[in-house]
Amino acid sequence: MDNRQSWRQRLYIIIFETSTPAAQRFDNWLLVAILTSLVVVMLDSIERFHNQYAGLFSALEWFFTALFAVEYALRLYCSPKPLRYAFSFFGLVDLLAVLPAILALMFADAQYLMIVRAIRMVRIFRVLKLRHYLTQANFLLVALRGSKQKIIVFLVSVSTLVTVFGALMYVVEGPAHGFTSIPTSIYWAVVTLTTVGFGDITPKTPLGQMLATMVMITGYSIIAVPTGIFTAELANAMRQDGQMEHDCPHCRKPRHEHSAAFCNRCGGPLFTRCDAASSAPRDRRETD
Amino acid sequence: MDNRQSWRQRLYIIIFETSTPAAQRFDNWLLVAILTSLVVVMLDSIERFHNQYAGLFSALEWFFTALFAVEYALRLYCSPKPLRYAFSFFGLVDLLAVLPAILALMFADAQYLMIVRAIRMVRIFRVLKLRHYLTQANFLLVALRGSKQKIIVFLVSVSTLVTVFGALMYVVEGPAHGFTSIPTSIYWAVVTLTTVGFGDITPKTPLGQMLATMVMITGYSIIAVPTGIFTAELANAMRQDGQMEHDCPHCRKPRHEHSAAFCNRCGGPLFTRCDAASSAPRDRRETD
Amino acid sequence: MDNRQSWRQRLYIIIFETSTPAAQRFDNWLLVAILTSLVVVMLDSIERFHNQYAGLFSALEWFFTALFAVEYALRLYCSPKPLRYAFSFFGLVDLLAVLPAILALMFADAQYLMIVRAIRMVRIFRVLKLRHYLTQANFLLVALRGSKQKIIVFLVSVSTLVTVFGALMYVVEGPAHGFTSIPTSIYWAVVTLTTVGFGDITPKTPLGQMLATMVMITGYSIIAVPTGIFTAELANAMRQDGQMEHDCPHCRKPRHEHSAAFCNRCGGPLFTRCDAASSAPRDRRETD
Amino acid sequence: MDNRQSWRQRLYIIIFETSTPAAQRFDNWLLVAILTSLVVVMLDSIERFHNQYAGLFSALEWFFTALFAVEYALRLYCSPKPLRYAFSFFGLVDLLAVLPAILALMFADAQYLMIVRAIRMVRIFRVLKLRHYLTQANFLLVALRGSKQKIIVFLVSVSTLVTVFGALMYVVEGPAHGFTSIPTSIYWAVVTLTTVGFGDITPKTPLGQMLATMVMITGYSIIAVPTGIFTAELANAMRQDGQMEHDCPHCRKPRHEHSAAFCNRCGGPLFTRCDAASSAPRDRRETD
Repeated sequence: MDNRQSWRQRLYIIIFETSTPAAQRFDNWLLVAILTSLVVVMLDSIERFHNQYAGLFSALEWFFTALFAVEYALRLYCSPKPLRYAFSFFGLVDLLAVLPAILALMFADAQYLMIVRAIRMVRIFRVLKLRHYLTQANFLLVALRGSKQKIIVFLVSVSTLVTVFGALMYVVEGPAHGFTSIPTSIYWAVVTLTTVGFGDITPKTPLGQMLATMVMITGYSIIAVPTGIFTAELANAMRQDGQMEHDCPHCRKPRHEHSAAFCNRCGGPLFTRCDAASSAPRDRRETD
Repeated sequence: MDNRQSWRQRLYIIIFETSTPAAQRFDNWLLVAILTSLVVVMLDSIERFHNQYAGLFSALEWFFTALFAVEYALRLYCSPKPLRYAFSFFGLVDLLAVLPAILALMFADAQYLMIVRAIRMVRIFRVLKLRHYLTQANFLLVALRGSKQKIIVFLVSVSTLVTVFGALMYVVEGPAHGFTSIPTSIYWAVVTLTTVGFGDITPKTPLGQMLATMVMITGYSIIAVPTGIFTAELANAMRQDGQMEHDCPHCRKPRHEHSAAFCNRCGGPLFTRCDAASSAPRDRRETD
Repeated sequence: MDNRQSWRQRLYIIIFETSTPAAQRFDNWLLVAILTSLVVVMLDSIERFHNQYAGLFSALEWFFTALFAVEYALRLYCSPKPLRYAFSFFGLVDLLAVLPAILALMFADAQYLMIVRAIRMVRIFRVLKLRHYLTQANFLLVALRGSKQKIIVFLVSVSTLVTVFGALMYVVEGPAHGFTSIPTSIYWAVVTLTTVGFGDITPKTPLGQMLATMVMITGYSIIAVPTGIFTAELANAMRQDGQMEHDCPHCRKPRHEHSAAFCNRCGGPLFTRCDAASSAPRDRRETD
Repeated sequence: MDNRQSWRQRLYIIIFETSTPAAQRFDNWLLVAILTSLVVVMLDSIERFHNQYAGLFSALEWFFTALFAVEYALRLYCSPKPLRYAFSFFGLVDLLAVLPAILALMFADAQYLMIVRAIRMVRIFRVLKLRHYLTQANFLLVALRGSKQKIIVFLVSVSTLVTVFGALMYVVEGPAHGFTSIPTSIYWAVVTLTTVGFGDITPKTPLGQMLATMVMITGYSIIAVPTGIFTAELANAMRQDGQMEHDCPHCRKPRHEHSAAFCNRCGGPLFTRCDAASSAPRDRRETD
């Protein structure tokens, strides 16, 4: 019992943590394995290479599937709460990396599902010890969360715009000019509003071109909206970083430097000895 | 009389408000009806489905038209001021949703006008009880209103730019290369300035390509202008550096900068050590 | 003499100013004339209309040329300093509006130069009494001037990028795939970097597509630079609006509200009776 | 010895510095030489000019190669630490400008490597005495450095997105519709996400067009992220809300917020009425 527990603990440290040299070596090799498996899947899709190296790619594919399956099993084994890992974001990602290959054993066409392995790329974030980068990413996530409602309003407005514009173009141009149905016209409206502009469908009539002009100017201008939302929230988050949130008992100034003992607006002491814990300040720090 | 008035009031609460469970159920079913009618219109425009289910789609179309007509009549009936509703934004939208079908009864080609029903999508905003989201949208609207004049200056400048560029390209490239007229060239200028770039018309001569380069760099750079305008206004609206509401103890000036320690009208200190919490200033914060 | 001077003065008020009803009527009719002449030029370029209405368009063109020539002569006549008007921005624009037609009298091919009349559009700014809007536009111009040097650095960097990328693509793809020369490849690089993406020239080799990917990600990311520059300058300009620049004699705080008599940081008076005019504050207002 | 040292010093001042008229004349002629050599390379790639002026271009190319080789040798000669120059950024750029021509002597196909000379364009920054502009560019570089980690997080996210989207489109559309392999599909995903939209590959199936819509809306929205990052950092760098340098009269704390009236370490007032101008604080302003 003691041996197995200690094995589980050691495996846990190696697989889930990054503190010891063994753990770091494991992470590096895992990263190499993930990237190599992705490259193999990509090369296998190129016809020229597929014809030449089909056998080699097949073998490598099975090797990696076995490797990732063993790694998944080990993670389940040494995790203190296996079910919690299995249903976490990374747990589901890891499962998606091995499942397609098993399905391919049973269904020939499911071979393409192995491409879904591309989703393993999200593990790269963790393997690259991006804890350091994740601190910075936290700013981005805070800004995104703070602007969530404005973003939803924006997305619903865009959906309405493309549907109305698409429907109008369908009426104006018609199937003869490529706008074969309303869904196709909505697809064209998205292509144009987002300024992508493939050119597979283009308006031919003068009225259609005029309407297209309105769609383009709209798309060009409203790019400002998500940018403005996100920038304002990010600037706000960055400005408040490093400040303590505590109301001065005298003049109620809400923000002070972390090291402040007195309020720099009224000069009164920020804390008195009889301050109960409930009125203690909350430091505005990033939570890891 | 009493019965009818009480019926009108109950209908009003169900249709126009969202406070009771009946009202919320009404809203949910209305949303389902709007979305389904839109899907039917979209599917009916796809030739394959049109040929297969023409009868079913026709019947559904008439069902929804009748439904929305009844709803419109009910809204007029139970509204305290029917004319005010009829000419409000939502009133006109609702009318536009039933009118095309009635016109289609009389004019065969007006069938396509039923597509205008797509404008019913704007009702989704109200039905989704976006009062909560509308608070957030309010920031966006305030920022848009505040920057209205700068935006108009920007739009007139863009119109001038595309006209001048379009006319120049017409002279440089000429009809032989796709620039068949000045309006067409202006259309190309809009496509290029907004960085959409369909590719249906492209410059072939070296001088034309050089001019196109100028158009593209201009379009790429001035995307910064509406973004800057909107972001600056939004950041301004969101900033809490507004003003502190605190009466100066000496001259009773009601408003001061957040960081002010002395009144800038009489020079006296704004806070004394014995200020009780009840007379502490209320900082002008964002209301949720 | 008195009569002629008074005629000159009255003409000056009507033509150059917007204070009297006569002046405003003149402005409105001038706007109608400018827009109509532009529409005539545009319609004349469409082959279908040109064939049908050639005579009418010709007559209208000459009418407008005569009209603008008379207006130009009147402006020179009633302007207190005619040469100063003739070489000002608007003066040159007005001259460019009549000159092509006169050249067309002598050279048949110069007919197309009449398109240059499109430059008259810039007069619309003045005619629309955009003094009100020009106040808002002033913010934009201040922000543009403030960021002038950063923008030049940005533009030179972009020029370097497109030249280097273009030259590399010429080597990688070669004339066989559409990259017929280095200038053409630079044109492709501009089309791709600015995310316009016409599609008239596209990379076909894998290495070329990889290089194109780098160009696209670069163009997509550095759109942030002019936007950031302009937004930061505009936000700065908007924040400082409405504040007085005057160093407090005691603590040297640089900015105060317009109506401040005392410094709100140290409480000392901002002005003493013996302040000489040279140390008087400069109000930060917009100059009209 | 004295003569040679003084020659070396004089050459150093002429070549590396910009203080004397001789140094400025050298810089101007060098700029002319760089631009002319670039124009020659560009013209030589246009077939029409190549056929006509092959001899002239060849001669000019060798002239410039010799010129730049001599300049490189001189720089090595008069530089106090030659190896340090040779491995600096500008040193490598200068070497790259002469090396291709020498390689072309030995390998015929290396003729195209002369295009790499385009990299000489980066010397233009230095020659144009952009010290003045480099101050402004410094803001940009500081903002870029400050946001380096957020940018890396952003770039890794974009790489993941395009790989996943590309792989999905390969499965959905397949080689029949242009998505011939996963790398090609990833190339399409980059083209679409960056809103370039060449149109050489476009989705044909309804599911593919729906997926493409998601890619486009994503690309359109996340343009906000690098813009927001860069703008927030730049606004932070430009803001004058830094810190006031003023020793607290009581506890001598050297730095306080700009708007502070009391020291937040000891609570004492920062300014008394009898403060002389010489002890007034220096606000941390932008140095021109």
